[in-house]
Amino acid sequence: MDELILHEDHRSGNCYKIRLTAALLGLPLERREYDILKGETRTPEFLAKVNANGRIPVLQVGQRLLPESNAACFYIAEGSKLIPDDRFERADMLRWMFFEQYNHEPNIATLRFWLAYVGEHNLTEQQRAQIPAKRMAGEDALELMEQELKTRDWFVGDSCTLADISLYAYTHVAEAGGFGLEDFHHVCAWLDRIAALPGYVAMD
Amino acid sequence: MDELILHEDHRSGNCYKIRLTAALLGLPLERREYDILKGETRTPEFLAKVNANGRIPVLQVGQRLLPESNAACFYIAEGSKLIPDDRFERADMLRWMFFEQYNHEPNIATLRFWLAYVGEHNLTEQQRAQIPAKRMAGEDALELMEQELKTRDWFVGDSCTLADISLYAYTHVAEAGGFGLEDFHHVCAWLDRIAALPGYVAMD
Repeated sequence: MDELILHEDHRSGNCYKIRLTAALLGLPLERREYDILKGETRTPEFLAKVNANGRIPVLQVGQRLLPESNAACFYIAEGSKLIPDDRFERADMLRWMFFEQYNHEPNIATLRFWLAYVGEHNLTEQQRAQIPAKRMAGEDALELMEQELKTRDWFVGDSCTLADISLYAYTHVAEAGGFGLEDFHHVCAWLDRIAALPGYVAMD
Repeated sequence: MDELILHEDHRSGNCYKIRLTAALLGLPLERREYDILKGETRTPEFLAKVNANGRIPVLQVGQRLLPESNAACFYIAEGSKLIPDDRFERADMLRWMFFEQYNHEPNIATLRFWLAYVGEHNLTEQQRAQIPAKRMAGEDALELMEQELKTRDWFVGDSCTLADISLYAYTHVAEAGGFGLEDFHHVCAWLDRIAALPGYVAMD
């Protein structure tokens, strides 16, 4: 495989997904840090050379650039045990990764970013007005995960896949966004299972 | 392949993606209609038997159920020309599909749904307050597509992939959400290219 370079902010769960995927597979990953709070992913240079969408993570593969955290995980993990061999299970894994970006991340990650990094007093009025809806939608996402994990150890098949890694990233730090996990017993047990995997690395 | 049944609302672009994918590949698809405006995807029966997330589309494959439009397209198209053979291009295709669900659909599809189906006068105050931000974010997504299509005919590689189908679904009806496409010349030419593909079907 070409050399892998991760353009990232180490506090981002989306970036952490990629580090965790590489670590579980024992793959080396060079890291380049940008401070999103200082606007370092919105500079003309970043927009022109790294990602026109102004977001991290971006996985650099040799000279090619791949934005979107879950796409980067998929690239790294192809051919490994983290992606199921079965066609339906592979699509079902993607199903949870799309769920993560649509129902989970915009609520749980955004509230964590707003409350733990930007600070509630620095939010715009419009952002503040969105907190209750994001709180409710984030809790719905956690409840859906809880129901799923009542009958299984992993989201797809019988072992850890990218579906678990993707959902783990912001679930295990959801408390920083004001989400209590104590009532989600099956989610908590699943978090422990992931943290016990050989090769696991913690978020910085 | 097992029999495919699409649980859908025919007005949804997310459902249309799956019909278009199947049509381009000449695969039969049975259709089951639900009216989202009448809450038919929020009934206890739907939540228990079709999708606990209360959303359509859901692709039924034999007895198994697969939510999330882009995961369903991936299932249907595996092994076909709609998914690139090259590893990087395959991940890059997913990159655009995640972009679609994160940056495009929540803005362009949501404004279309609010303005063309729910009606502006029926929106809550909080929904109305989100219109300007969604308008701007939707235009940013279209502008990013326009820049990309300046130098290429398709989002990935040299032919139509699921990246194009995914982004086509709500772009070609963006005007119903109040988005003007007349300044996005490359996007308009790309829409025409897709509509000219053999096997293409229009949205109902």
